[in-house]
Amino acid sequence: MTETAAPRPATYTPTDRTVPTRSRDRAAYDHEMVHSILDEGYVCHLGFVRDGAPVVLPTLYGRVGERLYVHGSTGSRPLRMAGQTDPGLPVCLTVTHVDGLVLARSAFHHSINYRSVVVHGVAHQVTDPEEKRQALDALVDHVVPGRSYDSRPANAKELAATSVLRLDLDEVSAKLRTGGPNDEPEDLGLPHWTGVLPVRTTYGAPLPADDLAPGIEVPDYLTTL
Amino acid sequence: MTETAAPRPATYTPTDRTVPTRSRDRAAYDHEMVHSILDEGYVCHLGFVRDGAPVVLPTLYGRVGERLYVHGSTGSRPLRMAGQTDPGLPVCLTVTHVDGLVLARSAFHHSINYRSVVVHGVAHQVTDPEEKRQALDALVDHVVPGRSYDSRPANAKELAATSVLRLDLDEVSAKLRTGGPNDEPEDLGLPHWTGVLPVRTTYGAPLPADDLAPGIEVPDYLTTL
Repeated sequence: MTETAAPRPATYTPTDRTVPTRSRDRAAYDHEMVHSILDEGYVCHLGFVRDGAPVVLPTLYGRVGERLYVHGSTGSRPLRMAGQTDPGLPVCLTVTHVDGLVLARSAFHHSINYRSVVVHGVAHQVTDPEEKRQALDALVDHVVPGRSYDSRPANAKELAATSVLRLDLDEVSAKLRTGGPNDEPEDLGLPHWTGVLPVRTTYGAPLPADDLAPGIEVPDYLTTL
Repeated sequence: MTETAAPRPATYTPTDRTVPTRSRDRAAYDHEMVHSILDEGYVCHLGFVRDGAPVVLPTLYGRVGERLYVHGSTGSRPLRMAGQTDPGLPVCLTVTHVDGLVLARSAFHHSINYRSVVVHGVAHQVTDPEEKRQALDALVDHVVPGRSYDSRPANAKELAATSVLRLDLDEVSAKLRTGGPNDEPEDLGLPHWTGVLPVRTTYGAPLPADDLAPGIEVPDYLTTL
């Protein structure tokens, strides 16, 4: 048997924009961490510049390998702008999960446990029909895994009314805070409760649409979310 | 008894930036709706422009009347930039709550029930010490109402290490989607389950810090969150 070196984990190369300034929180650049944070969510905040000023809009996203996709009406601003802009629209796409409220003895050391991913890059309109279909499936499956197989795919008219933007995962970083509060030594005797209050996103019971035909049961992929 | 007209509800004036283009979702400009969405959250996504490109960072915020405050280390980028920029840093601050996943019979009509607020404006560094203290209390109380009374206030060194930005609520809109899916009439006979999966943010049991002294109980304001 020959010994082989363990494969080096794939990482994104840090840049001036993705190395945090002065933060105590941990930065991570490995694909595994970045993908896991992205795949846990479906709403991102997409930033772009319009008339010199920043605009930040919440929007749905999906991931296919090293590409993110966001979509919207062909009439919505960022989608129109990306179509009109050559060679694409500079964007910053950010995804954040809150995991806990960190209560320290001092107001100053209060914090949030969180995991976030920030993607810098240039978004391009997807024009290839096959890539567009794949992106739209990914968007639906990002919200509810498996749902694209259990709904009617977009027809030609719907595809024409939808714009999809592609953003490559290239200049990317994750940032996270975990663990308990970091109080000052001189505060340890103060009488305030200190610790972490966990925060979770949960789902309620599925509410059927008014016009759902009798006999159509809630699918398994919803009850196991 | 004399009859008096009901007071007109206070609203923000729509602008070109706050009127949605081509969206079916509802836009709202009344103070009551905007404040309620802002007050339910504590993490916003703050967008600004750096070297011509957009940057979107998750950050904590608090509200005092018609002003929002965000804070950070004096060394963090947006805080430094706002301090160096005269007359302030153009920003876009967005807060989003997800209320439900909307599953339609067609992939195209899948959606999210949500409430969001987008604030456009120019952020200024807070230099008045009294306003800064009030803003920091508001930031702590936005995360856990009442907590600023049950923690050690910031001392002079901590105040000096913290920058606070102020953003007036002036050019503001709320956007929201509620209700069930909007399927096409020709899709009503398809066999797919359709409806809404409610999404909620919940709290787990408080986890005391390792060094919490025995006898300090979990405060009531945490168990009633």
